[in-house]
Amino acid sequence: MEQAEAQAELRRRALDYHAQSPAGKLSVIPSKPCKSQDDLSLAYTPGVAAPVREIAADPEKAYDYTGKGNLVAVVSNGTAVLGLGNVGTLAGKPVMEGKALLFKHFADINAFDIEVQARDAEHLIDVVAAIAPGFGGINLEDIAAPMCFQVEEALQKMLDIPVFHDDQHGTAVIVAAALQNALELQGKVFKGVKVAIVGAGAAGLAIAKMLRALGVEAVYLSDVHGVLHAGRSDLTHWHQPFATAPAHWTLMDMLADADAVIGVSVRGAIPEAALSGLAAKPVIFALANPDPEIDPVAVKRLRPDAIMATGRSDMPNQVNNVLGFPFLFRGALDCRASQINQEMLLAAVDALARLAREPVPEEVQQAYGFSGTDGLSFGPEYFIPKPLDPRLRQWVAGAVSAAARKSGVSRL
Amino acid sequence: MEQAEAQAELRRRALDYHAQSPAGKLSVIPSKPCKSQDDLSLAYTPGVAAPVREIAADPEKAYDYTGKGNLVAVVSNGTAVLGLGNVGTLAGKPVMEGKALLFKHFADINAFDIEVQARDAEHLIDVVAAIAPGFGGINLEDIAAPMCFQVEEALQKMLDIPVFHDDQHGTAVIVAAALQNALELQGKVFKGVKVAIVGAGAAGLAIAKMLRALGVEAVYLSDVHGVLHAGRSDLTHWHQPFATAPAHWTLMDMLADADAVIGVSVRGAIPEAALSGLAAKPVIFALANPDPEIDPVAVKRLRPDAIMATGRSDMPNQVNNVLGFPFLFRGALDCRASQINQEMLLAAVDALARLAREPVPEEVQQAYGFSGTDGLSFGPEYFIPKPLDPRLRQWVAGAVSAAARKSGVSRL
Repeated sequence: MEQAEAQAELRRRALDYHAQSPAGKLSVIPSKPCKSQDDLSLAYTPGVAAPVREIAADPEKAYDYTGKGNLVAVVSNGTAVLGLGNVGTLAGKPVMEGKALLFKHFADINAFDIEVQARDAEHLIDVVAAIAPGFGGINLEDIAAPMCFQVEEALQKMLDIPVFHDDQHGTAVIVAAALQNALELQGKVFKGVKVAIVGAGAAGLAIAKMLRALGVEAVYLSDVHGVLHAGRSDLTHWHQPFATAPAHWTLMDMLADADAVIGVSVRGAIPEAALSGLAAKPVIFALANPDPEIDPVAVKRLRPDAIMATGRSDMPNQVNNVLGFPFLFRGALDCRASQINQEMLLAAVDALARLAREPVPEEVQQAYGFSGTDGLSFGPEYFIPKPLDPRLRQWVAGAVSAAARKSGVSRL
Repeated sequence: MEQAEAQAELRRRALDYHAQSPAGKLSVIPSKPCKSQDDLSLAYTPGVAAPVREIAADPEKAYDYTGKGNLVAVVSNGTAVLGLGNVGTLAGKPVMEGKALLFKHFADINAFDIEVQARDAEHLIDVVAAIAPGFGGINLEDIAAPMCFQVEEALQKMLDIPVFHDDQHGTAVIVAAALQNALELQGKVFKGVKVAIVGAGAAGLAIAKMLRALGVEAVYLSDVHGVLHAGRSDLTHWHQPFATAPAHWTLMDMLADADAVIGVSVRGAIPEAALSGLAAKPVIFALANPDPEIDPVAVKRLRPDAIMATGRSDMPNQVNNVLGFPFLFRGALDCRASQINQEMLLAAVDALARLAREPVPEEVQQAYGFSGTDGLSFGPEYFIPKPLDPRLRQWVAGAVSAAARKSGVSRL
């Protein structure tokens, strides 16, 4: 009952926040003077003809004379919004505006939200490719799997700017960083552990791929139809590389002896009955929002040797995508990278993992704006940076730019 | 030589203005608080789920909880940018950013620029329709004729928000208002005059249509191939209603006895030799930028009884689209109009014409920021409002909203 009241209160406050005039969350303002007739004659006719001519002669000049180089389109078709599923094109707009707001707040990137009424994957690809020239990057958001894989792959091939599906790679980066640290705290390393991922959508598959790249050999996934194995006929070609479990495995078999369990599914998807069967000193990430896949209180009681992360801001170790996407794009835009490649993702993982192991300066603790932030030193209650940590931009974006340069995809 | 130097200086200053950090002219900023963890929990997860659910249940709620209701897409394919022609998709971006800046500056409307790499008219229509749901209006810009007619007509049929091609209707509104006043100053009215339009592109045809709606019976047009007449096989079905001249007419025939000549073409398109043949007390609008279709100095010398308007800010009576589109959209958005219809355009014409006949208050003269603004009272040197007149918003937007309500296309 108390929880229901808290949720009703949150709903009221969130609706008020969005409805307060001006409605919505974004404002587009001039970044240059435009008070006098002279200003306007530079911003518009006749002065504007000069940059037009420059760009017509050399399209790369758009980075010098327009906002392209610091502009990201937040694109969604509304088919997998939050945990709410296919809410429709327009209903995703508050989320996309919110994402644009986060881009600006955390990384000083201008972002427009673009909600696309797409008939199918091909149509979505065609529309995004058509509007891409004016942008410096494309952030795909809340697009249902497997369409998201097809759309991202196609656009990455077609465009010379970063195309990044945050629900996949942003999540994977942060989970991988958190898991690396959590395993270390438990005295383990990627090589040799068994990881069970509950949920095989965009996030689950991207996490599996990332963990393999980091050296985890035993990664298994499950979805609502059971554990992924090679005999299943309902899997896409994006699932198949991860359909490595024995055909007879149940969810309980997949979880048995697991060193790490990662839930990217819904409340209840990790059964409490599985807790006793996990390996010693397990790591449990239950990332569903607002209700984790397994009750953290039950975990604490039944497996005091486990360490945990969730998606919630009111619990320790919040896996929040805001730790990743603003700085991945900041790093990519800063060096005019043509893509966000695996090297850049791995650099972000490493930077996040390293930052969490750094001492937290007093002024940073204060800057969080949290009350009662105990234990902000590396340990079971703090193994991933906090979303408001002001050091994130320099650490992560810097590492991403460096990796882009090193891997030859930067143009600055 | 002096002119060449002035142009080089303008070019340098315009490039500096655009390149100065941050490059470009637009910034996207949060319009709501987003400093604390609590703010972010309202703007993004978990709070954002509340407006998403509301809009999923009732799409009209997007006007309450997102920026849709005050958001215009400035859309171009770059095929007819300024007087520069088909400069390509990306090279139009400085103009579209500039347009977005003007929307904000003059009418407090948020506008994003969208440059569309379109294969053809059908593709452009498809792309714009797909991204339209998140916007409150679509401003089409710098799209070559006749593609612009097809694109606008199709989108107007498909969408329930205003779709407005400024190069057509914005220009037509301002020209019509200016012409009404200029004719009055010359002792004439729309009915009975002969109007010759030099240029039969988007602007020329829209002006012709508007003038007919206002009662001008004798409207003729010419293009680079000559006067429009029914025998020409190269005309689209958008031109045909205006192909009313006798088949043998030359440009000089069309201009003979004309009470008004309107140039929407290029420098030199109105021959000085035609001046002597115009009707007594003629009106000449030479709107090409930066160089008018006919030299105003020559007009003054050869036809001292003529009164003139140009597109230039350094001459009297500047026909500038900024007098129209910001306030047409402001009026349409204010009453949530589903379109910008003929009644709304005519209301804008009337408001502009009336405003120019009003005395200009001292504080408004100062607010212009011009030096040496003599003669700001209705007469040959002032028959159209100045672009920076602060009264425009109330006069024009108010009239447009009222016309929308009266014609039944408003939803507020």
